[in-house]
Amino acid sequence: MENTLEKTATATFISPADMLAHWQGHRNLTRRVIAAFPEKELFEFSIGGMRTFSAIVQELLALGAPGLRQIAMETNEKLNEDIKEANSKENILRLWDESTAEITQLWSKIPAERFNEKIVAFGQYEGTVWSTILYYIDNEIHHRGQGYVYLRALNIEPPFFWER
Amino acid sequence: MENTLEKTATATFISPADMLAHWQGHRNLTRRVIAAFPEKELFEFSIGGMRTFSAIVQELLALGAPGLRQIAMETNEKLNEDIKEANSKENILRLWDESTAEITQLWSKIPAERFNEKIVAFGQYEGTVWSTILYYIDNEIHHRGQGYVYLRALNIEPPFFWER
Repeated sequence: MENTLEKTATATFISPADMLAHWQGHRNLTRRVIAAFPEKELFEFSIGGMRTFSAIVQELLALGAPGLRQIAMETNEKLNEDIKEANSKENILRLWDESTAEITQLWSKIPAERFNEKIVAFGQYEGTVWSTILYYIDNEIHHRGQGYVYLRALNIEPPFFWER
Repeated sequence: MENTLEKTATATFISPADMLAHWQGHRNLTRRVIAAFPEKELFEFSIGGMRTFSAIVQELLALGAPGLRQIAMETNEKLNEDIKEANSKENILRLWDESTAEITQLWSKIPAERFNEKIVAFGQYEGTVWSTILYYIDNEIHHRGQGYVYLRALNIEPPFFWER
């Protein structure tokens, strides 16, 4: 009985190292979706009153690395979706790459036992460390899917979803 | 040294039970996105030459429960995205609910040690059990994000992304 409980408590769907690699695969795809937009449409095109893809990417930049910084370094982070530097495609891609490198570096500082801890992300959103990180990843996939529709509406072939 | 290796090998980002609950939360949201479409637009509306949302949901129905059936029961499953029964919103919602119930039932039959096994999903797609299941979930989030744009273009408010 004790062995069964022990086994259940440590049962793993995915290891931390595999989860990071999975996220980085998604970030690589999102980078290629950003790169697929023409400069003008990245900042001006939208459908149905939604945000432009550059505004959406600012949200993703505001969540990913700062969100993980709070988790890994136990800092207080503010949610800032108005990223002044994100004013050209080149700058957005540079900010994206910097965030990607920071995420890899921060990930190595999170001991595995912390993924089940409770946190309040950005001082506002209650969850566990794992649910918060999955929220950041899922939110990136969700909004990138919207970017795919923008690209299709612009008659631009988006990258394959399964290529990471 | 051995202790460190042991710890690394069993390190958990998320437990199987939490992963199922997370997926079911997403399925609940996708159900509400399907329900938000008017019957006619579910089958007729699209943007940029993409599929209608009913055709997209047929893909999701073809992957989720059949994909997990292959994993849990070690059956050979064929990828069938042409689901004849999915011919009305009511029927699609019923098929969705049946898949959701089947996924819960199948999940309980997968021993945790199997998530790291290699498989060839639908006899075509190589990966591990965890990467295959994440593909099904990520693909649902991706296509549902496209459904959000369709709804916005139809001037329909989609459900909140964070409500599961």
